[in-house]
Amino acid sequence: MPSGGPVDAEGVVHLPVRLYRTGEWSRRTDAVAVEEPLELRLHTPDRELPLGVLMRTPGQDRELLLGWLVSEGLWPQDSTLQADPENANVWHLHTPEHERLAAGARLTVSSSACGVCGSGSVEQLLSRASPPPWTAGPVCAAVLAGLPERLRETQAGFQETGGLHGAALFSAAGRLLCSREDIGRHNAVDKVVGSQIAGLPLRDHVLVVSSRAGFEIVQKAVTAGIGVVVAVGAATSLAVDTAAVFGVTLCGFTREGRFTVYAGAVRVRGPAE
Amino acid sequence: MPSGGPVDAEGVVHLPVRLYRTGEWSRRTDAVAVEEPLELRLHTPDRELPLGVLMRTPGQDRELLLGWLVSEGLWPQDSTLQADPENANVWHLHTPEHERLAAGARLTVSSSACGVCGSGSVEQLLSRASPPPWTAGPVCAAVLAGLPERLRETQAGFQETGGLHGAALFSAAGRLLCSREDIGRHNAVDKVVGSQIAGLPLRDHVLVVSSRAGFEIVQKAVTAGIGVVVAVGAATSLAVDTAAVFGVTLCGFTREGRFTVYAGAVRVRGPAE
Repeated sequence: MPSGGPVDAEGVVHLPVRLYRTGEWSRRTDAVAVEEPLELRLHTPDRELPLGVLMRTPGQDRELLLGWLVSEGLWPQDSTLQADPENANVWHLHTPEHERLAAGARLTVSSSACGVCGSGSVEQLLSRASPPPWTAGPVCAAVLAGLPERLRETQAGFQETGGLHGAALFSAAGRLLCSREDIGRHNAVDKVVGSQIAGLPLRDHVLVVSSRAGFEIVQKAVTAGIGVVVAVGAATSLAVDTAAVFGVTLCGFTREGRFTVYAGAVRVRGPAE
Repeated sequence: MPSGGPVDAEGVVHLPVRLYRTGEWSRRTDAVAVEEPLELRLHTPDRELPLGVLMRTPGQDRELLLGWLVSEGLWPQDSTLQADPENANVWHLHTPEHERLAAGARLTVSSSACGVCGSGSVEQLLSRASPPPWTAGPVCAAVLAGLPERLRETQAGFQETGGLHGAALFSAAGRLLCSREDIGRHNAVDKVVGSQIAGLPLRDHVLVVSSRAGFEIVQKAVTAGIGVVVAVGAATSLAVDTAAVFGVTLCGFTREGRFTVYAGAVRVRGPAE
């Protein structure tokens, strides 16, 4: 066994999902990777400021922060890195080099997520976004299952390089409106939303991503008003929570005619269960 | 054709690579996705400040920035978004709401990459990192080709959820030292580096990632002193450039006994070409 070993149990949760497969529904419990924000606070003589916020899977948080500080060129000598006694998603950095780090802090906050816990991130999003109601009626499960393949057909860059993520916007009936590629999966979604800026909010639309669905993907859907998110890969715990709070339908592992529904199954029309 | 269509030609470059496959070497030219930083500058009456830096594939930059501003809750009314006349990686935002945006800017810079162009990012890294020389002799190509499979064997969380990235550290001879998982591929690398904090720089080590290799993955290897990076997925243009500048060996598409070497092939020992 390596010194590392598998992530510990806190990195996975088990959630009830609905599975659509070969035209039939079933219910089961799936293991989902946990996503939570982690905030590092830098202490200076007169104040305490956020040095970074990382969306991460809990566990080995000290190692994560140490490695991140090294990567950013910020790991200071003679420092102490301490877990907050009350909030597992907050750590404190005390260092005589606080001036150097505070100057660098401007460019190191890696996520706009905040609130220092998953529900805080969701609440923060609630304070600034309210998606429009879905009025298009249910989306056909068989149509939905085929959307990733249709996204892939538009991905000329992926076909050439194997290194580009894709995102596409479809109508509720499955009509392709727009697709974009980028090395960053979040960027591909931003390009799609930006291309439709005159039509925001994107009521009754389906967003398809070639990647997994984390909090930020669902956040982007919510702020754009998109009611259905379809991912080729897995969903994270915080993506599921966020989708549930905002009434967004979230599907993952959408491939080969099947998909898993993590939230908002009511908006998907399939055969009777 | 959707209104989106494929990325335009500027999103892909063609680079000379070496391919290791079924025990033999060949040379060819591969299409690689372009990665460059994009900086958005906010103009206020008395200054100009970076509102965000995104590592992205060039093309559709206006759409990307519009979508990103919407996602961050920052898209202001009555604004103008203009490309810099001289630098294709810089855009300017003028808005009467500059006070609100400047207050939010603190949490929106998404990357520590800077320099406003790829070479600027590499130069910035050069100013703070100088990896130790590689002293272990060449790495055996057949061993290297098998490392992703050995990483996968340690990924209990991925096997359970399908949603966790992995990173592992091996010795030059292929001995597993540590592996970590996280929903974020950068986090998984940070956890690996953080777990070895007492042993930095990690001279003569091989970093294996379950994901693609972008600039930030190579940056993390460089700052930790790691001389060989092996990715299961593709490498980006800026990752290749950075690896070349720092003498890091960079391999991608490492699966089923084959891999592509983008930089530093001299450090890989295989059969004679």
